[in-house]
Amino acid sequence: MSAYGVFRRAGEAPRVGAREGDAVVDLSALDLDEPRELFARPSLNALMAEGPATWARVAEALAAADTEPARVPLADVGLLLPVEVADYVDFYSSAHHAANVGRMFRPDDDPLPVNWRHLPVGYHGRSSTVVVTGTPVVRPRGQYVEGEGGPSFGACRLLDLELELGWVVGVPSTLGEPVGVEHALEHLFGVVLLNDWSARDLQFWEMVPLGPFTAKSFLTSISAWVVPTADLEPHRVPLDPQEPPPLPYLHEAPWAYDLDLELELDGEVVARPSGRHLYWSPAQQLAHLTVNGASLRTGDLLGSGTVSGPGREERGCLLELTWAGSEPLTLADGSTRTFLEDGDEVVLRGGVGEVRLGEVRGRVEPARG
Amino acid sequence: MSAYGVFRRAGEAPRVGAREGDAVVDLSALDLDEPRELFARPSLNALMAEGPATWARVAEALAAADTEPARVPLADVGLLLPVEVADYVDFYSSAHHAANVGRMFRPDDDPLPVNWRHLPVGYHGRSSTVVVTGTPVVRPRGQYVEGEGGPSFGACRLLDLELELGWVVGVPSTLGEPVGVEHALEHLFGVVLLNDWSARDLQFWEMVPLGPFTAKSFLTSISAWVVPTADLEPHRVPLDPQEPPPLPYLHEAPWAYDLDLELELDGEVVARPSGRHLYWSPAQQLAHLTVNGASLRTGDLLGSGTVSGPGREERGCLLELTWAGSEPLTLADGSTRTFLEDGDEVVLRGGVGEVRLGEVRGRVEPARG
Repeated sequence: MSAYGVFRRAGEAPRVGAREGDAVVDLSALDLDEPRELFARPSLNALMAEGPATWARVAEALAAADTEPARVPLADVGLLLPVEVADYVDFYSSAHHAANVGRMFRPDDDPLPVNWRHLPVGYHGRSSTVVVTGTPVVRPRGQYVEGEGGPSFGACRLLDLELELGWVVGVPSTLGEPVGVEHALEHLFGVVLLNDWSARDLQFWEMVPLGPFTAKSFLTSISAWVVPTADLEPHRVPLDPQEPPPLPYLHEAPWAYDLDLELELDGEVVARPSGRHLYWSPAQQLAHLTVNGASLRTGDLLGSGTVSGPGREERGCLLELTWAGSEPLTLADGSTRTFLEDGDEVVLRGGVGEVRLGEVRGRVEPARG
Repeated sequence: MSAYGVFRRAGEAPRVGAREGDAVVDLSALDLDEPRELFARPSLNALMAEGPATWARVAEALAAADTEPARVPLADVGLLLPVEVADYVDFYSSAHHAANVGRMFRPDDDPLPVNWRHLPVGYHGRSSTVVVTGTPVVRPRGQYVEGEGGPSFGACRLLDLELELGWVVGVPSTLGEPVGVEHALEHLFGVVLLNDWSARDLQFWEMVPLGPFTAKSFLTSISAWVVPTADLEPHRVPLDPQEPPPLPYLHEAPWAYDLDLELELDGEVVARPSGRHLYWSPAQQLAHLTVNGASLRTGDLLGSGTVSGPGREERGCLLELTWAGSEPLTLADGSTRTFLEDGDEVVLRGGVGEVRLGEVRGRVEPARG
């Protein structure tokens, strides 16, 4: 059982490694009975493209290997973006999150959009700005509306984070051939933690009619480690039946990963959502994404959407935690937060049992220019 | 002056070529004083990444070369997708198109969304399903709502096309550093024709709150030839001043390419829009896309959005041409169309003076499954 990532020692080429405590095991330096080219690479994509049989063989060989000669202390390496991201799609799969947003902005309507229980709502995000944990979060600039009159331009005033899980596609699919919900897991290589940084003021102004754009496209951070879905298999939990039952192409007994998640702001845990608080399963998200014939590529990244639970302390973004800024959070040092301030550091963590997702860390830097 | 593409002769590797009448000039077989690796490639990306100085040198060397020994008849080659698409963003930049949509679906409101004259509205599309002209258009399946009650699932009933121009990015930019509107053209390598196939019934049901998703992601077709922006430079035309004047980061004297466009359905030209009927210039689209710090990559594709003019015969999609199906088109054979039927063939063409964009052709095939 091991998470995979890409590391670089000073002066050497990037290589694929497996996490082992405070070290990374250089897979290209072990004899795993697989072509060394799978591991002497700057991304996991070649390994991910191989499919479940290879993934299982590698995991088994790794478990049986004497890894000592291939261990490199984490302190001696840099961790790189583990995946060359193909298409990035972000979903909106937590009913608690979607309903909270509805209650804030459409208090007189049903909290959930009319289509929400019929399909996993999602949209395409920007792949070029998916970055690895630790990358600075430069406050974006853009258009927002304040009071009466036209839009202003400047640094985002309502900078938020979104705690999400990300599903990483390994096995591609064929254009025109939908991936059935029952086959979805055969395509998924692993799971990451994901922070969908969000400029709420930009978002409010731009998102009607065609969805979020500059409010989200400036940065999306993921963990340096990808946890294989196989390692999470024992931690799938059934969810309550979906009501109304979804259309046949989405029909399965809904499930989620029982991951305990943690949102830390400036050293203090401010929320503890759980991966089980999703309505749509990863398999349903993937089936919906491909039902129209759209093809998957190795490296596709699917975000779950903000993971929020029913409790106040289970909300996965500041928009919900501060109820759109109306209920500021008070931190241990007595300071308060509605949205993120320059210098703030956000860390996402997660895991279940012995399975640890890699953390996602980001510090907010002032806008430039 | 020449458009570039990627071709393959049976049994040979794909290579970069330049169009010359009924032939393609194999650039890897000419001595152009550039590294041959730029041209012995399955995409234009390596050439595009080089930047304007190289693009100009190659065009000059090509014009001076004896191309005869490197000419291959088009009949002997297959044309491939010319660009390895990085991120694909689709804009909504024609005021006539956006206002027509507004008049149809929000007859009591301002035809243009409130933000429309302040920013180039856009959203990210799916890169994996950008295909080259000639690729069959399999009717997608998905969710739609008919009458009362919940959604149905089946083959799209309202299949449409959208005639667009596409701007192809050559020179990448740096994360966190916006590309100023005055520098945008330094990044743009060329122009393609683009058909943004659209499943209107899927779109109506899914697009609130996060924008179009499965309604668009099944297929986007582009021409096999990329026309260098340098060749279109003499054909830039000024547009009327924008009112209200846009924010400073978008401020420039607005312009467009004076391209005559043609939408052919089953052998009959049903619309003749012009490239000059855009409100936001390609430079403004690119400046807006990067104003938040989002980075460009070689191969990024920006769609203009449907290009529609003021006249009835200048509308770039069936939604407008048939006013949402209420005014069917009558074709020469007496048959009528509201939206596309199986077997229909759509061809987009365009050009100005001696500059010809490559055509975009697609035939609708029945839904599968």
